[in-house]
Amino acid sequence: MQCLNVDLGDRSYPIYIGSGLFEKPGLLASHIKGKQVCIVTDDTVAPLYLDALESALSGYRITRVILPTGEAFKNWTTLQQIFDALLTDRHDRRTTLIALGGGVIGDMTGFAAACYQRGVDFIQIPTTLLSQVDSSVGGKTGINHPAGKNMIGAFYQPQAVLIDTASLQTLPPREVSAGLAEIIKYGFIRDALFLTWLESNMPRLRALDPGAVTEAIERSCSIKAEVVAEDEREGGVRALLNFGHTFGHAIETHQGYGVWLHGEAVGAGMVMALDLSARMGWIGSDELARGKDIVASAGLPVTPPQSMLAADFRRLMAVDKKVLDGQLRLVLLKGLGDAIVTADFDTTALSDCLAMSPE
Amino acid sequence: MQCLNVDLGDRSYPIYIGSGLFEKPGLLASHIKGKQVCIVTDDTVAPLYLDALESALSGYRITRVILPTGEAFKNWTTLQQIFDALLTDRHDRRTTLIALGGGVIGDMTGFAAACYQRGVDFIQIPTTLLSQVDSSVGGKTGINHPAGKNMIGAFYQPQAVLIDTASLQTLPPREVSAGLAEIIKYGFIRDALFLTWLESNMPRLRALDPGAVTEAIERSCSIKAEVVAEDEREGGVRALLNFGHTFGHAIETHQGYGVWLHGEAVGAGMVMALDLSARMGWIGSDELARGKDIVASAGLPVTPPQSMLAADFRRLMAVDKKVLDGQLRLVLLKGLGDAIVTADFDTTALSDCLAMSPE
Repeated sequence: MQCLNVDLGDRSYPIYIGSGLFEKPGLLASHIKGKQVCIVTDDTVAPLYLDALESALSGYRITRVILPTGEAFKNWTTLQQIFDALLTDRHDRRTTLIALGGGVIGDMTGFAAACYQRGVDFIQIPTTLLSQVDSSVGGKTGINHPAGKNMIGAFYQPQAVLIDTASLQTLPPREVSAGLAEIIKYGFIRDALFLTWLESNMPRLRALDPGAVTEAIERSCSIKAEVVAEDEREGGVRALLNFGHTFGHAIETHQGYGVWLHGEAVGAGMVMALDLSARMGWIGSDELARGKDIVASAGLPVTPPQSMLAADFRRLMAVDKKVLDGQLRLVLLKGLGDAIVTADFDTTALSDCLAMSPE
Repeated sequence: MQCLNVDLGDRSYPIYIGSGLFEKPGLLASHIKGKQVCIVTDDTVAPLYLDALESALSGYRITRVILPTGEAFKNWTTLQQIFDALLTDRHDRRTTLIALGGGVIGDMTGFAAACYQRGVDFIQIPTTLLSQVDSSVGGKTGINHPAGKNMIGAFYQPQAVLIDTASLQTLPPREVSAGLAEIIKYGFIRDALFLTWLESNMPRLRALDPGAVTEAIERSCSIKAEVVAEDEREGGVRALLNFGHTFGHAIETHQGYGVWLHGEAVGAGMVMALDLSARMGWIGSDELARGKDIVASAGLPVTPPQSMLAADFRRLMAVDKKVLDGQLRLVLLKGLGDAIVTADFDTTALSDCLAMSPE
């Protein structure tokens, strides 16, 4: 078992990475202060891992909340089911919420923990590759609004994150690819060597080779933990983690939540960001081609949906959380492994990028 | 104009107290960082003060949200109207929300600010006596759940609080009394001299004498600011501010939000807490009688509704946020001006208190 620390002062927490973490005696208990826990999961993950988790929590009074699966349910109505269960079973401020599932479950459970009685503890047990390398690190929680993804939420840190790599064995290939999108992102924004490593190891990663997967998760979580420690509330460098996401969120919103997986939208979004960086002359056409190849090799789309027009992108990108005083800012590359947040891009280049992308 | 500072490290903020604060040039602007503001108010306060506030904000792009008045609307559906307006007018992370109204408006606007894009600035302009001395200080924000008051929320501090005493001139007498409940509370929990002052000045306060009102607001806000600075997230001493509130919340929930005003329920709740303290032998019957007289002299009820049984109190008090691991804790008095939080009360005394109270 590996242990990384996310360094945030009195909000610091550990990330454990390994196989069979539920069975480690005392690991979960050391992060639970009361006698009651509430496990929140979805109807896909519950049949696979809920029993094992409950066995590891004998001695606690357990409330279980099984939500419908998918981004389409990441809204207030679903969140309300968590509050209803907590109040029905009279959970008090010493309760601990445990998120067992992917990013949607983690985001909603974390937000429920942030809001229930103005804040209770929570533990993340991410079961998808994407949530293990992305949404379980950094304390972003929230729900979607019909007008924009993650528009309602909180920065709220868990007590601990348990990444059990064994849970990936049940993950569909399409979701493995979606997780690889975020892993590739860390290379693009901050670590050119990691990009090279990914080029060599992509087939092993897609085959879920335990050694390769563990290394990719560790490297990704380390990079994210480093960035978040520098900038917990996204005043500066943390925005780099949004590489590909402004375009990606627009794709997800346009298609309807859950039609494209988040990682798939980020895959296409990263290629659009590479394309715009190349149009600005900040990266070469060889780097653009190499970046595009890496995304494609992960089994991800490299173009947005055919039905999406430049006007759709403009409308949907205007509500991005990086917009400041009406001005759109994007994460672009000055080189592979070197990202910046900037409003200083050519509007013609952006128009060309948006118009060209659906090939 | 007086200025108090609430000392919370990098979340510190000033409370300005005075008459005609909207007209002070630059006072509001000094706490607004972007170009957009969103004023949230209700349909009672809007006709009285919205125009004056908007005049003070010329130069900003203003979104206005006018909500229905009252505790019955302090829920997710109403909160959603704020998010809808913010997204429709494309407010970004540099926006400032301004709460213009009573405690319900302050709590909801603060919670909306805490959640919108995971946190934006807000300014409180409380227009009722109760919100000026209570909910505008300390950063508690939130909404109600059908199963309990303020169950969903956040600790989130404003940039500044403007208490304009001129706005009290339009307040109905019943709401003046409700505000006096919280003012009296500060005396009960922490300041016996202030209780004596209140006994002498109650007629002046009910007549809204400017000098008396300003002094009572300052004294109340100072005590609350002191307590909150000691314990921002209610781990300890802050719970004392809940004196009378466990009983009071049960009354409000039982009657349906908005039937009893919050201050009225707290008035009756404080007398119940005094009664239980006396049954425990912690205060004398003379102190109980004196306390009850002070509450009555403010024009507040001193007994809960006739229809409410001991069983109703037990059921509704079981979800109180001070319950820890299933054990009810109450704020009781060891003397007038000396409160404690304790689970160490006699259950027979509590039963007698609950059974006797509806006289």
